[in-house]
Amino acid sequence: MNEKTDVTEWIRGINIPAALISYTYRALQKKFQAGLRHYNLGWGHFSILMILLDQEGLRQDEIALSRGFDKTMIAKSVIRLEEENLVYRITDPDDRRIRRLYLTEAGKRAGPEIRRIGFDISDRLFKDFTHDESQALLEYLRRIALNASEL
Amino acid sequence: MNEKTDVTEWIRGINIPAALISYTYRALQKKFQAGLRHYNLGWGHFSILMILLDQEGLRQDEIALSRGFDKTMIAKSVIRLEEENLVYRITDPDDRRIRRLYLTEAGKRAGPEIRRIGFDISDRLFKDFTHDESQALLEYLRRIALNASEL
Repeated sequence: MNEKTDVTEWIRGINIPAALISYTYRALQKKFQAGLRHYNLGWGHFSILMILLDQEGLRQDEIALSRGFDKTMIAKSVIRLEEENLVYRITDPDDRRIRRLYLTEAGKRAGPEIRRIGFDISDRLFKDFTHDESQALLEYLRRIALNASEL
Repeated sequence: MNEKTDVTEWIRGINIPAALISYTYRALQKKFQAGLRHYNLGWGHFSILMILLDQEGLRQDEIALSRGFDKTMIAKSVIRLEEENLVYRITDPDDRRIRRLYLTEAGKRAGPEIRRIGFDISDRLFKDFTHDESQALLEYLRRIALNASEL
């Protein structure tokens, strides 16, 4: 049995968008895991690092709420990122209940490679899409995500 | 902080398809989990049941390989489905190393409701899509999934 051929056949025959989304998600997750192996991290960690590379000082619960992540998953991932010395937390001086997330020097140094892994995977996912097709697909994915947020 | 508004804003602003796919996957997973709560099952179990509702007697490794599922995940899910008395395994008389999966009576009885949960979620995911848009999106998702299979 040829694993690759089987999957390809299944993809060509399936009419259930949710199944294709699920398959793509799993393939992406696997690829990210492989790309981040020497950091000992997975996709959840990658997402948090990408968010902090854009904007530091965010609250852990903000990250969870604003992206629909599970709070427990985010909390666990932040602990791992602290252990790997990529992220640290600071208690907000104005409200001691709030802890804000920042990148360590090692976290900042890892930034370009982390971004590169993300862009590289994204490029390969859309390798045969024209610019117009990519834009159309992005708009469709936004509509699905909005509908999913109301499920 | 309004959880719903935050996610909606994020979805409208994001330009990264993989992030939208990931968000949609997580929202779907959560919804399936809720729908299947009284069966005590999650999305992985749902996928296996849907596959067996289409075709019984498949080998566990066939299910994993043909859909790109992780073998350990499938093995664990099958054990749970056996415990819930929805699925049973039979050793192939021609090759005693092979075990084939079948639905129990309870598994068959659960079929219509399981399917309904799947179709209902799918309908709501595409509620504002015209027929042509759904077809275009399905084709795009197939192309992405094929690219993902080559990552």
